Amino acid sequence: MSPVQPPAAPRGRFITVEGGDGAGKSTQTRRLVDRLQAAGVGAIATREPGGSTGGEAIRGLLVSGAPDRWDGVTEALLMSAARRDHWIKTIQPALARGVWVVSDRFADSTMAYQGYGQGIGRGPVEDLARLVLGQARPDLTLILDVPTATGLARAGERGGANGSADDDRFERMGQGFHDRLRDGFLDIARREPDRCALIDASQPVDTVAEAIWETVAHRLGVRDPDTAARTAG
Amino acid sequence: MSPVQPPAAPRGRFITVEGGDGAGKSTQTRRLVDRLQAAGVGAIATREPGGSTGGEAIRGLLVSGAPDRWDGVTEALLMSAARRDHWIKTIQPALARGVWVVSDRFADSTMAYQGYGQGIGRGPVEDLARLVLGQARPDLTLILDVPTATGLARAGERGGANGSADDDRFERMGQGFHDRLRDGFLDIARREPDRCALIDASQPVDTVAEAIWETVAHRLGVRDPDTAARTAG
Repeated sequence: MSPVQPPAAPRGRFITVEGGDGAGKSTQTRRLVDRLQAAGVGAIATREPGGSTGGEAIRGLLVSGAPDRWDGVTEALLMSAARRDHWIKTIQPALARGVWVVSDRFADSTMAYQGYGQGIGRGPVEDLARLVLGQARPDLTLILDVPTATGLARAGERGGANGSADDDRFERMGQGFHDRLRDGFLDIARREPDRCALIDASQPVDTVAEAIWETVAHRLGVRDPDTAARTAG
Repeated sequence: MSPVQPPAAPRGRFITVEGGDGAGKSTQTRRLVDRLQAAGVGAIATREPGGSTGGEAIRGLLVSGAPDRWDGVTEALLMSAARRDHWIKTIQPALARGVWVVSDRFADSTMAYQGYGQGIGRGPVEDLARLVLGQARPDLTLILDVPTATGLARAGERGGANGSADDDRFERMGQGFHDRLRDGFLDIARREPDRCALIDASQPVDTVAEAIWETVAHRLGVRDPDTAARTAG
């Protein structure tokens, strides 16, 4: 007789938070994970490029240095290498344990930054996503949208994409690049409405957090402890 | 009137030297460049992963650390990123100036190591080569073949893939991996006989250098100064 196996944990859900610089992705990623945990859902926050030992090592090559340090194709390859490491070492194992994963940036950033912003096109970026992820995709992608000038002004005040003055390589790429980037994210949201939700991130941070929570609750069927208590009572 | 333009230099030829660890690629690359220069052909030696500032930065992530530091897909992506930088920053500009380029490893190493050795298959590696190089390919590829045990013994004596004890990540991948690697290189040579020449690299280093020179002279139409003098006289 085989020993009794404990029932497998249900697979966790995978949520990505996307958008240009200064859209508030890091703040909203943390707020969402806090709220999921408060609702009794095991959840972790992670980020790209990075999120694993190898991914963070590759990140160092990507976020610092001159804007023309890498061309668009090299960037897309480095981002995809970092993503593969992050995916197999951090995200997949967490999801398999039943933990929800919220990632500050993921594959849509490569599509927007390199596919649209750097102009290498959708086809090569889609091929790279297939090589890295197979058929897997996020369960829900929150695209945080702000006008380009607002985002860049916020990012400039903060100092660097990661709060460090050295982490600002992409921010220094100019207004035209950032306009293509925003249009790219809007196009991604239009093309995949079932997976993506567009969030107006020009609103106050608490309002954005509430809009995100309502979207997550509605699309992925999570309930606040308060709501659950009220419904039960 | 437009000013008189000097005639464009004829495009340089691109030669790659491929094979497993310990096949003698670095030595033969240097010998070939020396002999091309002696024959009056402007030529440079370069290597992969590396060969440009960005390529060398990525090399550091690839050649050191534990054998399982990266999976085959991540490796192929990192190698391709390093190749793209090498191609656009070093190789293409040299060829455009009329300089011949001899590279110690190139795209066939990704096919052999990751496609065959790590088992990710030919298709994804071919897609990556197209993304990195478009339709461009080497004019001539010299595949240096030695029995697996001979190559690993030579590499072990030398200490590391780059003469450094820290540069031996691939050498530590085991006999099965290195057998698949050798079969991969032999298969590549069989599939593309017009581009590739198989060289028996188990012979003494001078014999191998002579075989390489005869192949280059025959296939790319270079003549030794001695031969040219004899023919003229």
